[in-house]
Amino acid sequence: MAKLPLLSEIGHDVTGWGFFLCLDKEVATSRNGAAYLKVELQDRSGLIKGKVFQDVDTVKLEFDAGEFVKVQGRTNFYQGRVEFVVDKIRRVMPERDAADGFREEDCIRCAPRPVDEMWGELLERLDRVADPALRALLLTMVQKHADRLRIWPAARRVHHAYRSGLLEHILSIMNIAIFLADQYGARRDLLIAGALLHDIGKLQELSYDTATNYTVEGNLVGHIVLGVGMLRDAVRDQPPPGMPAELVTELEHLILSHHGDLEFGSPVKPMTIEAFLLAAVDDLDAKVHQIRQHLDDDDSPGRFTSVHRRLDRSLLKPSS
Amino acid sequence: MAKLPLLSEIGHDVTGWGFFLCLDKEVATSRNGAAYLKVELQDRSGLIKGKVFQDVDTVKLEFDAGEFVKVQGRTNFYQGRVEFVVDKIRRVMPERDAADGFREEDCIRCAPRPVDEMWGELLERLDRVADPALRALLLTMVQKHADRLRIWPAARRVHHAYRSGLLEHILSIMNIAIFLADQYGARRDLLIAGALLHDIGKLQELSYDTATNYTVEGNLVGHIVLGVGMLRDAVRDQPPPGMPAELVTELEHLILSHHGDLEFGSPVKPMTIEAFLLAAVDDLDAKVHQIRQHLDDDDSPGRFTSVHRRLDRSLLKPSS
Amino acid sequence: MAKLPLLSEIGHDVTGWGFFLCLDKEVATSRNGAAYLKVELQDRSGLIKGKVFQDVDTVKLEFDAGEFVKVQGRTNFYQGRVEFVVDKIRRVMPERDAADGFREEDCIRCAPRPVDEMWGELLERLDRVADPALRALLLTMVQKHADRLRIWPAARRVHHAYRSGLLEHILSIMNIAIFLADQYGARRDLLIAGALLHDIGKLQELSYDTATNYTVEGNLVGHIVLGVGMLRDAVRDQPPPGMPAELVTELEHLILSHHGDLEFGSPVKPMTIEAFLLAAVDDLDAKVHQIRQHLDDDDSPGRFTSVHRRLDRSLLKPSS
Amino acid sequence: MAKLPLLSEIGHDVTGWGFFLCLDKEVATSRNGAAYLKVELQDRSGLIKGKVFQDVDTVKLEFDAGEFVKVQGRTNFYQGRVEFVVDKIRRVMPERDAADGFREEDCIRCAPRPVDEMWGELLERLDRVADPALRALLLTMVQKHADRLRIWPAARRVHHAYRSGLLEHILSIMNIAIFLADQYGARRDLLIAGALLHDIGKLQELSYDTATNYTVEGNLVGHIVLGVGMLRDAVRDQPPPGMPAELVTELEHLILSHHGDLEFGSPVKPMTIEAFLLAAVDDLDAKVHQIRQHLDDDDSPGRFTSVHRRLDRSLLKPSS
Amino acid sequence: MAKLPLLSEIGHDVTGWGFFLCLDKEVATSRNGAAYLKVELQDRSGLIKGKVFQDVDTVKLEFDAGEFVKVQGRTNFYQGRVEFVVDKIRRVMPERDAADGFREEDCIRCAPRPVDEMWGELLERLDRVADPALRALLLTMVQKHADRLRIWPAARRVHHAYRSGLLEHILSIMNIAIFLADQYGARRDLLIAGALLHDIGKLQELSYDTATNYTVEGNLVGHIVLGVGMLRDAVRDQPPPGMPAELVTELEHLILSHHGDLEFGSPVKPMTIEAFLLAAVDDLDAKVHQIRQHLDDDDSPGRFTSVHRRLDRSLLKPSS
Amino acid sequence: MAKLPLLSEIGHDVTGWGFFLCLDKEVATSRNGAAYLKVELQDRSGLIKGKVFQDVDTVKLEFDAGEFVKVQGRTNFYQGRVEFVVDKIRRVMPERDAADGFREEDCIRCAPRPVDEMWGELLERLDRVADPALRALLLTMVQKHADRLRIWPAARRVHHAYRSGLLEHILSIMNIAIFLADQYGARRDLLIAGALLHDIGKLQELSYDTATNYTVEGNLVGHIVLGVGMLRDAVRDQPPPGMPAELVTELEHLILSHHGDLEFGSPVKPMTIEAFLLAAVDDLDAKVHQIRQHLDDDDSPGRFTSVHRRLDRSLLKPSS
Repeated sequence: MAKLPLLSEIGHDVTGWGFFLCLDKEVATSRNGAAYLKVELQDRSGLIKGKVFQDVDTVKLEFDAGEFVKVQGRTNFYQGRVEFVVDKIRRVMPERDAADGFREEDCIRCAPRPVDEMWGELLERLDRVADPALRALLLTMVQKHADRLRIWPAARRVHHAYRSGLLEHILSIMNIAIFLADQYGARRDLLIAGALLHDIGKLQELSYDTATNYTVEGNLVGHIVLGVGMLRDAVRDQPPPGMPAELVTELEHLILSHHGDLEFGSPVKPMTIEAFLLAAVDDLDAKVHQIRQHLDDDDSPGRFTSVHRRLDRSLLKPSS
Repeated sequence: MAKLPLLSEIGHDVTGWGFFLCLDKEVATSRNGAAYLKVELQDRSGLIKGKVFQDVDTVKLEFDAGEFVKVQGRTNFYQGRVEFVVDKIRRVMPERDAADGFREEDCIRCAPRPVDEMWGELLERLDRVADPALRALLLTMVQKHADRLRIWPAARRVHHAYRSGLLEHILSIMNIAIFLADQYGARRDLLIAGALLHDIGKLQELSYDTATNYTVEGNLVGHIVLGVGMLRDAVRDQPPPGMPAELVTELEHLILSHHGDLEFGSPVKPMTIEAFLLAAVDDLDAKVHQIRQHLDDDDSPGRFTSVHRRLDRSLLKPSS
Repeated sequence: MAKLPLLSEIGHDVTGWGFFLCLDKEVATSRNGAAYLKVELQDRSGLIKGKVFQDVDTVKLEFDAGEFVKVQGRTNFYQGRVEFVVDKIRRVMPERDAADGFREEDCIRCAPRPVDEMWGELLERLDRVADPALRALLLTMVQKHADRLRIWPAARRVHHAYRSGLLEHILSIMNIAIFLADQYGARRDLLIAGALLHDIGKLQELSYDTATNYTVEGNLVGHIVLGVGMLRDAVRDQPPPGMPAELVTELEHLILSHHGDLEFGSPVKPMTIEAFLLAAVDDLDAKVHQIRQHLDDDDSPGRFTSVHRRLDRSLLKPSS
Repeated sequence: MAKLPLLSEIGHDVTGWGFFLCLDKEVATSRNGAAYLKVELQDRSGLIKGKVFQDVDTVKLEFDAGEFVKVQGRTNFYQGRVEFVVDKIRRVMPERDAADGFREEDCIRCAPRPVDEMWGELLERLDRVADPALRALLLTMVQKHADRLRIWPAARRVHHAYRSGLLEHILSIMNIAIFLADQYGARRDLLIAGALLHDIGKLQELSYDTATNYTVEGNLVGHIVLGVGMLRDAVRDQPPPGMPAELVTELEHLILSHHGDLEFGSPVKPMTIEAFLLAAVDDLDAKVHQIRQHLDDDDSPGRFTSVHRRLDRSLLKPSS
Repeated sequence: MAKLPLLSEIGHDVTGWGFFLCLDKEVATSRNGAAYLKVELQDRSGLIKGKVFQDVDTVKLEFDAGEFVKVQGRTNFYQGRVEFVVDKIRRVMPERDAADGFREEDCIRCAPRPVDEMWGELLERLDRVADPALRALLLTMVQKHADRLRIWPAARRVHHAYRSGLLEHILSIMNIAIFLADQYGARRDLLIAGALLHDIGKLQELSYDTATNYTVEGNLVGHIVLGVGMLRDAVRDQPPPGMPAELVTELEHLILSHHGDLEFGSPVKPMTIEAFLLAAVDDLDAKVHQIRQHLDDDDSPGRFTSVHRRLDRSLLKPSS
Repeated sequence: MAKLPLLSEIGHDVTGWGFFLCLDKEVATSRNGAAYLKVELQDRSGLIKGKVFQDVDTVKLEFDAGEFVKVQGRTNFYQGRVEFVVDKIRRVMPERDAADGFREEDCIRCAPRPVDEMWGELLERLDRVADPALRALLLTMVQKHADRLRIWPAARRVHHAYRSGLLEHILSIMNIAIFLADQYGARRDLLIAGALLHDIGKLQELSYDTATNYTVEGNLVGHIVLGVGMLRDAVRDQPPPGMPAELVTELEHLILSHHGDLEFGSPVKPMTIEAFLLAAVDDLDAKVHQIRQHLDDDDSPGRFTSVHRRLDRSLLKPSS
């Protein structure tokens, strides 16, 4: 039996086996009273839902959500999406399965660019900050939070919701913001800082190992205010010499106002040209990512995709 | 010539003299090209707008906005409000005018209850906090900010916008919140803390001596996030022994969510019963205060007041 | 086989029998073409959905929606909620089942406090009305509608949706309103009257025996205007001597404006301080009840509940 | 000196005299401290604002708001509207001024069609109601309220805001509703009844002699619920034999839902095809009237009118 | 076995056979892993959903979506709607099945009135246009697009979504618009033209043979702007002699503004009385059609229908 | 007497003379009954309002709105803005005043960059379009409309509301759009075309010589649909060889959707990534321009500007 292709490229009526991360496992009861298993599987390119109908009582003990699994079965078409009818499923045995090509990183969805390349680009960009005190502050924060900043997702679902997605999102925003700073004569230093810091609170808002979840303070405080707290801590622990207090206030303002308006969770609206540009670019980048992803994910027939709920529209598929 | 009555009780066609704080002074040009002075005057009970038509060039040098003044003139009815046509105006000469009864405190609008009485009540309420670590934290914060907390207004315009208005507002909310905590079995300690802390950031958001204004960080950060910062600083400077981290997070949540919804400037919605109650009581108290004030201020004829813009309605005047 | 625990406390994988009120019974067809029965069962503490897969053609004749039933089976976990897989179900045989402890009142969801205790409290509160004409009017209405007022639910679904829920809701509002009347110097008589009358139209809007439904005039007219009609009838049938016409108009205004704003179904906004307070307290009490109930009902894992649709948020579960 | 033309046709720089109803009189103070009088004058075709600058102290005693006046002066252009600079103004001396052609009815704004003609049309339409009990009920109500129904305006400002405007509005709606009932197979009887009754509460909501104002119950209860009360009183005083209770409920529903949605002040939405049609036609007629009036009133230059605030748009002027 | 009744009149538990158009065919997997077919069937009176559980692999090859089929089976009640459990299904054999009464037109949902009758009425109405140039333009457009205009549906789903539905909708609007033009003294010619042209772009927005779908330009441009393009093409190809350019602009405005407001897809708001009336009547006709259809389709028990999502309300069922 | 500085740099209490374009002239009456003149004056850098109090009857004949004028007077501070009290004003005598430095172009507000430089940049950008048919189409349109395209403003008020403002706005958008096309892998050709065409309809929507106004078709049709018409005309007059029909449809979609959402006047939402980017950049550029202009224009004291109505916020003034 053949190995399955990447989930981003899988069609229906495909039979084979593969290694995945099992994100979710749930016992359900069908309408005729029989139990079956619902699972959610992931490789580095995407997700698929699956069902196990045979030997449920035995099979459900063979693996858990959060574990890597070896799966065999056939894809199907159900309610407009491809899903997986699982014949066999068990947890991975690392040594033995390595022989068949199992590697953890192939089962974890991640950003398309390699993390080291992105990290290098980030440091290079920060090096362009002209004000030495600000540059030092930003580098301190990057070093302090490097472990998380390298791998964190940007969100639980909506956009860049995979390993190193936050870093990818920061860089995308930073590059556009630098261009716009020059185009409009805005302060480049502030925009580089804002691109780095605007979502830094996500490192505390979300927990992430293989799955992404909200922390208690993520829900009760939210990444915007958590980010301001992280900035304040950095300033307090290592006060940047010669940095005016009002510059710190402007940095806080960049973080606080980056959702653009109160109804989107910013307690204040952008009141400087840099804060306005940062919020606009953040919104743009998140939405372009959603458009891209919907065009990639959509399986519906015809020239237009199904309706994207958040964007509230169909999209014209590119004619290839 | 008689001394004028309190501004809250003044009618039109009244002639006399009095001492006031001059809040605003502006030179304007009438439609026939002549200059005149517009002033805003305050005593402890309220405000009045006035105009000086005579000897403008001389008179305008006799006093400044922010100074106490002695004024003589006659009240008038203009565009639905009583205003003051000033015949004479000059800055107060403290020693000399004391003889005629001038006292600074009579010229500054302030809460109806004496500040010491309110302060005593506040301390008594805080004493009811059962958790010793929380009680200590709250007392520390009250002592640290006592100077401002005793006299600060609760807002620049909308409600409790006068000396000690914030303290009056805190006490009003605290009393109702304690009642509701018992009524609904909510945590009384948290509600007392929330009543004290929810607007504590106003001490940094607003500057106040005789006039009230927004500070730079008041505009760019806002009292909600400033309040969280003040709480964090207090916890960090003097960590309350034995206080669980999550309780601090819940206190932050109380501050952050107290506007009730995102569109009103809270970055998170209330997610505990105490946060919900606090936001509801804060809204209630602010609106009752606006209703009261509009009923007091309105001079329009008939059984109903003029339309209150924020509340978007007329009010039935109490039949006396 | 053991007797089942109260539905409010039942978990999954519990086997046993019990007595319930059957609220709903529907024949459905599973995806493999087989018929099964969907039922909704109630005891005094809550609700559960159930399914019958065996002997459907026979079993479906053994009971009807609206009847008390004896049920045997096992609980299950389906789509995030506990449900009941029914093995046996039949209508109750009152004499015989009494021996096993069947009592009608154990199968009907009702307010936590005993109705007689609440009724006594209501009469005591009304006795505090100072104006004798108003007091007489309120007592007349209470006596006239006592049968329904004692047992009616406050709503079909949203809050206090069980036996005597309306009375519970009235008392809760009345107690808070009395406190606030004193706190803010509002007219206590009017607030007591408003607390009693604001939802009185529910007695005509809803039909209730064991199930709750909207009547034709409930849908076409609504409880707000029905309530005003009931007040007008009472005034017309037995005119309270010496009561000024405008007081009746104010009572009507209290009923009409108690949803607080036009978009929520009040044809006028609150224009007196009492009407404002009543609407605020009604909203508060309904929402606190929904929060409480969602915290009680939610079975989801983790520190936060699932999202409550109406309140549009998750809630932090109390740490026990 | 010539007599002035009708106000609907007056331009600027016109000098002359005329008889008017004085709707409003107010003493104001100009920026140079001098008193002047602001008046609002009406004839049967429209309104004009005016100012008196000379002999204010004497002149202001010569007439009052609500009286008929004889006025002499010249029209002017001020802030985009024609206004009147008054040279002489005094109250009408009926006998003497009759010689110059004074007639009260020429000074009161009224509907374009004669009231008797409209009244005859109304009775003819009601005669078409097929159900004898309903026809009797409607005729009873018309007779009972004939005095007011013949002359009442439909509103204080927005549309049909003049003598007999309500009757004009009722007839316009009734004719369209009858047409639509036939077009769509809806119940003609109900639509005739709805056209008559939908705004009947305006007779209690508004007071009207020469000026129009809200009554206390107009503000606190509103014409929608007042109208239902008037219907209920009629049914109770003289129960229409053989009329089913549900038909009365449907009539109440027609009145209650005729603003079309909650946010516009209807406590319920239209739930029958007749209620839907009535609300649609009422909205249509009111808006067409506003469009017409704005096209008539607008004095701005160019092909488009100034922006109409309620309709939130400019209108293309008809090319004549 | 008996022939099935019309779908608009079918109940549950009916067994029989019939001819239908198959609108949709999809293979699905039930919860026990077995495949089944979901189909959507149509006759001239309505739609029904159906399922095939037997011999799925064979049966699914016997017909396709878009084909006429002969079906045998039994109706069922599922989730509040009648559906069809199919025992046999195959594509129609025209010659052979004609003997059993198969006619294509019986399987295609269409407007209640015969198309030739409606077409004659349309031409008669256009003949009433007084301006010869405008009349000629309209007739040219009608002739050019006659093939589609006779049979096109007015929409894919919401209202008049069947053969000749657009023509039915145009006539309904035209008749009301003519009445209102006379009632309000608006330009009848413009309203006739507007009724014809307002949705003319639907002929390009939608594709229709037996099914209705959006075209690429239907989605990307929309029927409003497509309709303006069709008008411009007609004017350019055959310039109506003597027609002023501004009249063409007014016709474009009628098309562009007929959704009444920006949020509904009109790029401009109605700025003439005719444009306002057209938009109001279009909205009215579409909504009355939805109300009618919901009353016809609804199978729920009780005096009120289920909630209609777009209209956001239940409807009172007519008492028969 | 000195020549006045540029209006963008003028303060109050400045006396002098200058040349301006008179945009508006109106006779008004002051509260004491005296006539005065209100004028609006413009130079290339900005606007100022002015008043003439002396010799009004003579002076008002000396010039008209739309003419160039020579003015002498003194600046003043009135209601928070600098205004001009005019002592002398007369129309320019071109030959004579040339001696004092009068040049028409100094009196017309225009974009900061020279038009020829911008025009060259536009042609260079269009040259980068890779598809020859599209490039030819765009160049044809640019040549056809060059006269207007070089000088047209982008709006009557909101942003880029001056000579060559449209060209400035097009270039700004085009440069950002090219950058984003590369950043996100979108089609550069389409974005260049969209940047050029999105507002092309403004050439018909607005009339412009020295003043800017809406045309009749500007109001009734709007620049979005006018732009599509101009594109269609160009394609029809000179069909670009080999250009697929769908590409034209996509160009139309870019124009139609560039306001981003229905409520902002786009009849369709962006459904391609290029349409989404174009709408986002258009919004960004317009808002940045408004922010810049408000920071330039604002004269209010303190660290923050007055509230900008459209942006609904104050702005932090750059610390210089």
